[in-house]
Amino acid sequence: MTPLQVPAGSLLQQYGEAARLCACSNDQLTLIFSQTKPFDLVELERLLEAVGWSRRPMRRVRKVLYNSLLKVGLWRHDPRVPRLVGFARCTGDGIFEATVWDVAVHPLYQGNGLGKQMMTYILDALNQMGTERVSLFADPGVVDFYRREGWDLEPQAHRCAFWYAG
Amino acid sequence: MTPLQVPAGSLLQQYGEAARLCACSNDQLTLIFSQTKPFDLVELERLLEAVGWSRRPMRRVRKVLYNSLLKVGLWRHDPRVPRLVGFARCTGDGIFEATVWDVAVHPLYQGNGLGKQMMTYILDALNQMGTERVSLFADPGVVDFYRREGWDLEPQAHRCAFWYAG
Repeated sequence: MTPLQVPAGSLLQQYGEAARLCACSNDQLTLIFSQTKPFDLVELERLLEAVGWSRRPMRRVRKVLYNSLLKVGLWRHDPRVPRLVGFARCTGDGIFEATVWDVAVHPLYQGNGLGKQMMTYILDALNQMGTERVSLFADPGVVDFYRREGWDLEPQAHRCAFWYAG
Repeated sequence: MTPLQVPAGSLLQQYGEAARLCACSNDQLTLIFSQTKPFDLVELERLLEAVGWSRRPMRRVRKVLYNSLLKVGLWRHDPRVPRLVGFARCTGDGIFEATVWDVAVHPLYQGNGLGKQMMTYILDALNQMGTERVSLFADPGVVDFYRREGWDLEPQAHRCAFWYAG
């Protein structure tokens, strides 16, 4: 994994000490990962809708964010109106394990390696937290993506039971 | 699932509003589930060691408990010195999903259906929180237990990728 660059001090002030630059083919854009810049829930919902995910009640999304271990926004920097162009979050205890959820990159920005850099950012952050093991649940369409990225598929029907409520 | 009984008011004061009685073949014992009674980390470590789990640094266990969504203690009630005889915890956002970890019943108290009641207690608590889906990772030796309890095994190699950190 190529390490992500630390942005200039003024950007660190705006996006937090853990902010990192996200490389992009378009030189005109400054894309920044942040763990601390607060989300506008309407903007987050629009991003997730653009990716094709089903609408979720905002009251519940607020609780989900509150209970998540790590929330990462990918911002297209603008001095006045930064735009949210990517998102991911983790749950877990952050020590023995963490699970990655809701990795989303806006369709207009896909195909630039932003998803890969998002995973790099998340794994770095969890590593710094001291997390021993990271898991994710991949939909069939993206299993190959994660396999190429070095994730091991859980041995079949071993240490993996699931229960769907209701 | 048989609903768990609410204990008398004096016990609710001691073990919290969400406390429930755990039925047991020995009439002399009062066993109580609690989400709020604080753990003594040394006592928790002794319980987990008795179950045969590897020792973990206490500093990290403290963070794990802090970051967990739900911590459940099963206490053998005593007016002066209640004893921790069971434990379990969950991580997750508590809305879309939660994962159950570290379900432990002290060997002296096993074979009484306490583990089943622990799962009932946890699923009730998550249900009240509004959790849509609950998952757990079962070791090979207990897969059948969870299957009998109504958990569905995750379809093989579908929606399940894992990565073990360095």
